[in-house]
Amino acid sequence: MKVRVDVMLKAGVLDPQGEAVRHALGSLGFGNVNGVRQGKVIELDLDTEDAAAAEAEATEMAEKLLANTVIESYAVKVLG
Amino acid sequence: MKVRVDVMLKAGVLDPQGEAVRHALGSLGFGNVNGVRQGKVIELDLDTEDAAAAEAEATEMAEKLLANTVIESYAVKVLG
Repeated sequence: MKVRVDVMLKAGVLDPQGEAVRHALGSLGFGNVNGVRQGKVIELDLDTEDAAAAEAEATEMAEKLLANTVIESYAVKVLG
Repeated sequence: MKVRVDVMLKAGVLDPQGEAVRHALGSLGFGNVNGVRQGKVIELDLDTEDAAAAEAEATEMAEKLLANTVIESYAVKVLG
């Protein structure tokens, strides 16, 4: 079962990667960019056929390893 | 208008970050992980109200800067 975990910096946390991308886009002539936030995606292939179990396990993985919950939020989505 | 660009390594391209995550999950006791792929998400806040224009612009940004199309694929989604 494939599960996708999106990890983004929480609102208010400075995002230097996103700022760098915004600056680079400006240099390339893309002038109408108000803001950029960069995060990560982790696609997990779990050895289970139970969607609820897969979601619960991925959530535990996010809490324990994938996200730093002090500064990052995450979203878990079962892709099937 | 908010647009989201997902960038993932193409299938077949070695993903050391994903492998590192898989290894770390194994060490934490998550034994049923068949595979992990890690990618990035870029959330753009564009100064336009036209969804089609926003999508076209984000696609151009992905081609020119956000993705390395030799080894990465991308997906653009207008969030509204």
